[in-house]
Amino acid sequence: MSSLAASSDDFPRLADIHAAAERLEGLACRTPLVPAPAGGFRQGRLFVKAEGLQRTGSFKFRGAYNRIATLSEGARAGGIVAYSSGNHAQGVAAAARLLDVHAAIVMPEDAPRTKIDNTRGHGAEIVFYDRATGDRAAIAADLAAERGAALVPPFDDPAIIAGQGTIGLELVEQAAEAGIELDAVVVPCSGGGLTSGIAIALAALSPHTRVYTAEPKGFDDTARSLAAGTRLANSGAANGLCDALTVRTPGELTFRIMRDLDVTGLVVSDDEVLAAMAHAFRQFKLVLEPGGAAGLAAVLAGRLPPEHRMVAVIGSGANVDASTFIRALRESETGTA
Amino acid sequence: MSSLAASSDDFPRLADIHAAAERLEGLACRTPLVPAPAGGFRQGRLFVKAEGLQRTGSFKFRGAYNRIATLSEGARAGGIVAYSSGNHAQGVAAAARLLDVHAAIVMPEDAPRTKIDNTRGHGAEIVFYDRATGDRAAIAADLAAERGAALVPPFDDPAIIAGQGTIGLELVEQAAEAGIELDAVVVPCSGGGLTSGIAIALAALSPHTRVYTAEPKGFDDTARSLAAGTRLANSGAANGLCDALTVRTPGELTFRIMRDLDVTGLVVSDDEVLAAMAHAFRQFKLVLEPGGAAGLAAVLAGRLPPEHRMVAVIGSGANVDASTFIRALRESETGTA
Repeated sequence: MSSLAASSDDFPRLADIHAAAERLEGLACRTPLVPAPAGGFRQGRLFVKAEGLQRTGSFKFRGAYNRIATLSEGARAGGIVAYSSGNHAQGVAAAARLLDVHAAIVMPEDAPRTKIDNTRGHGAEIVFYDRATGDRAAIAADLAAERGAALVPPFDDPAIIAGQGTIGLELVEQAAEAGIELDAVVVPCSGGGLTSGIAIALAALSPHTRVYTAEPKGFDDTARSLAAGTRLANSGAANGLCDALTVRTPGELTFRIMRDLDVTGLVVSDDEVLAAMAHAFRQFKLVLEPGGAAGLAAVLAGRLPPEHRMVAVIGSGANVDASTFIRALRESETGTA
Repeated sequence: MSSLAASSDDFPRLADIHAAAERLEGLACRTPLVPAPAGGFRQGRLFVKAEGLQRTGSFKFRGAYNRIATLSEGARAGGIVAYSSGNHAQGVAAAARLLDVHAAIVMPEDAPRTKIDNTRGHGAEIVFYDRATGDRAAIAADLAAERGAALVPPFDDPAIIAGQGTIGLELVEQAAEAGIELDAVVVPCSGGGLTSGIAIALAALSPHTRVYTAEPKGFDDTARSLAAGTRLANSGAANGLCDALTVRTPGELTFRIMRDLDVTGLVVSDDEVLAAMAHAFRQFKLVLEPGGAAGLAAVLAGRLPPEHRMVAVIGSGANVDASTFIRALRESETGTA
């Protein structure tokens, strides 16, 4: 893995990730690194980092808390605004409540009900928009300006990236506890905040480990951007099975980090994602939402180079409706996935 | 909680549990103590000890490994025989393979397929019997005598109890890490090995904590035995939803431990178990098998005295077929559970 290029003066550093880990101590769970059963991964050993067991059911709490905790007292008093398909919303809402800050969340009308309900449950105000016609970033920016509130962006922000990077610290510690060194880590990717945070931590602490993103077909902006060396966008606002992974283009900062740290993009089909959800249930005894299973799907579909023997995937979230989970179990049973 | 009575010379002690923990170090997972989401438990805080994430998908590996590891070299050479509705089978099979001992497992023909497949997957030989007509203990004893093999009983054995008791050590440590003291622990109960091991650890390290068993209706031998002060049996060999909790009577040793340590029995319906499985999926993001959800079911059904504010339930296993899991999610969605 190459080191950071000269253009990287604004990149978060390992020290920022350590500082985030200190802020999160006792608040974020140190989620388990769950091993595949014996014989469950032919080419070596496979682990799932179970971030579905994180507070609010996804990794998003880490970055959101770190971002809000590093706002000035004055900024906090004006409240915060965020936009999210669901997991960032819940993470922001829970973090804001812990820090006693008012949160307004801009969410698509068709977000999974469990994510809407849980965001409300954390005491946040919800502002809906139409995913087909509205621009959520613009709506959130207008709302923030109108109220004098601080915007908590979903991924393209150094404090968000540093918060998500705490997963990288835990991966390195947990791999050492398991007596292994990780050859590869596969990360479900939307805007790239999770991937770039983990990549920074691993580049510093486990430079041998290769980092891959996993995206669903039709939302493979990161894979195409990394291959092209420049940011590319997805064509439309199509609704995908992986509702957490529907960003149109990588972040500006996250893309530079992923590119400079030699991250490679992998792409999976919806059928592969459903099969991975069923596999996680059967073999790892874990609940994963579609987007949270994309990394596992990439490994099970054989997208990784075969020389990687010690592999971890991030099971990045578990906020899935029962009907979607049932669909995954059924399609896998009847062999269509 | 009372201390151990004078009749307790053959009881496993805290030192035996510590010795088991040392043997299991690096082999058994220290499973997470997963908290309910904020506001998810009105009377206080609720945690699930996620033993479904244990090696082989249930707590049974702990006791099985401790039992086989403490056999003499000579006894190990003759192989081992065990009988089990499934989870003990998998635990024994995995432990035997780690210790390089041949394992033959007597299993009912109607055990869940996932448990049969996984037991085979761990390299064990499987001997089937008919649950309606056969006596599995007798079949296993005959087989062991015939082969000169050692019997690994499912619960009524000091080394098995000490192995399961390592969960009690972890509960005390994890409660301290969460900054709480547990008022109550609710344990799914079949023969009582898990409950008695945990009760011994808690009596020594957290004597304030009350221990409860949870059993399904029709298989409430432990609840009735504890209330009567003497061992009572269930009427028949009916097949229950909770396939892991179908023992006919508590163990001789486990019953004395539970009685002397003031364990109280709670009883739940199958509908309450299905609702608890769905609740575990939605709120805790955990897969639980029916028997593994009995403790959570007892809490959600309001069976605990309301003065308990800090409560942990043991989510004792996650080896559930997709069809049963789907049933739990569906019945809970349509409001019948």
